Amino acid sequence: MPNPTAAMLVIGDEILSGRTRDANMHHLAAELTKAAIDLLEVRVVSDDPDAITWAVKALSQTYTHVFTSGGIGPTHDDITADNVARAFERPIDVRADARALLEAHYARTGLEINEARLRMARVPEDATLIGNPISAAPGFTLENVHVMAGVPKIFEAMLADLLPRLTGGDPILSQSIQVLRGEGDIAGPLAEIAARFDALSIGSYPFQMDGRFGANIVVRGQDGSQIDAAMAELNRIFPQ
Amino acid sequence: MPNPTAAMLVIGDEILSGRTRDANMHHLAAELTKAAIDLLEVRVVSDDPDAITWAVKALSQTYTHVFTSGGIGPTHDDITADNVARAFERPIDVRADARALLEAHYARTGLEINEARLRMARVPEDATLIGNPISAAPGFTLENVHVMAGVPKIFEAMLADLLPRLTGGDPILSQSIQVLRGEGDIAGPLAEIAARFDALSIGSYPFQMDGRFGANIVVRGQDGSQIDAAMAELNRIFPQ
Repeated sequence: MPNPTAAMLVIGDEILSGRTRDANMHHLAAELTKAAIDLLEVRVVSDDPDAITWAVKALSQTYTHVFTSGGIGPTHDDITADNVARAFERPIDVRADARALLEAHYARTGLEINEARLRMARVPEDATLIGNPISAAPGFTLENVHVMAGVPKIFEAMLADLLPRLTGGDPILSQSIQVLRGEGDIAGPLAEIAARFDALSIGSYPFQMDGRFGANIVVRGQDGSQIDAAMAELNRIFPQ
Repeated sequence: MPNPTAAMLVIGDEILSGRTRDANMHHLAAELTKAAIDLLEVRVVSDDPDAITWAVKALSQTYTHVFTSGGIGPTHDDITADNVARAFERPIDVRADARALLEAHYARTGLEINEARLRMARVPEDATLIGNPISAAPGFTLENVHVMAGVPKIFEAMLADLLPRLTGGDPILSQSIQVLRGEGDIAGPLAEIAARFDALSIGSYPFQMDGRFGANIVVRGQDGSQIDAAMAELNRIFPQ
């Protein structure tokens, strides 16, 4: 059975303007690989209602899961929750269960719960909450869309809460070798091996280091003995 | 006049699998901001012909410019050039001008020019070449799509060759302040300032540092005196 598929949607003007470097994409990609869910697309869009709504609609119709990052805080530019609700035409308001989590958290920390903070308890009808052990304000799952925070520590904590509830496929195994030759030298034999082992995905990822060119050759698949056989062949052709 | 808009398309299984961290997005975002071209969307797709063709079509019809990164080397999984040609229904083959660049480069470096390396001279009809001072194999511009390498040093060199030929709009100015208070405290007054200065874009980007919450408040726009006025107001409300 093919693995479940996934897309990520990053909401963030600050990434598109070059102010901030996205960190959550790399973390999500690694965690989904471990969970045997195939991440097939990432989109980064700006803090714009139509851009968010349209991307949520398109991605949720195409993939098994959509994971969003960013735009669920208390400020005026945090519009992700409202536009995910809009994409599914669901009502959204401050919800009692989310509000209770915030009230308990602020009672412990001595901060006042004001109108701005209550925005973080806005959750669409029928959504399931995603836990936030760091700052209490929850994420949520609506249909197949999982809405999480942009601050990396909180994103990671929410993902850790969410992932065990999702069902993955068969794990993808991978092995790799590094070849210190230009890709132009290795491309011919590599294409032959890729054609021979057509149940595997064999990728070549070039790099440049100390003025020399090299490539990491990565073999991926679900059949460990096939991967072993392809690696033996690669090691024979490109001795270290 | 509004600024030209842009999207980036990253082609890379290695990023979606979590093996590699994308570096080109951050570089492109910063360079486009300097050039007054508004980057409004980034997509990362896998090394899949249909995914690449479909994304090139969708993005090139929506934005002034599309910048691609990755998948133009000599190996079997380098399929970007062919699928950009396919998106525009243009023929593609080894082109004399691109081949001449490669031949000169390999004559200098003493490497043989083989079938795999010649793949890098495949350029669609009517495309304009983008220079590659590092490893010679050129990128190209077809219609409004600029096809560049994935290796960061080569991507950056190609972008430096390309950008001076593109026309930007009015530069976006920005100023920011850091507030060491939770966003829940600052959201109320911030929303009022954002409403008052509606020609500016005012974003709040939360962070967590040494167990404390804070936010960078960034004010962006094209009118420097408006930005000064908004910053004065922010400094009055959130004294450092």
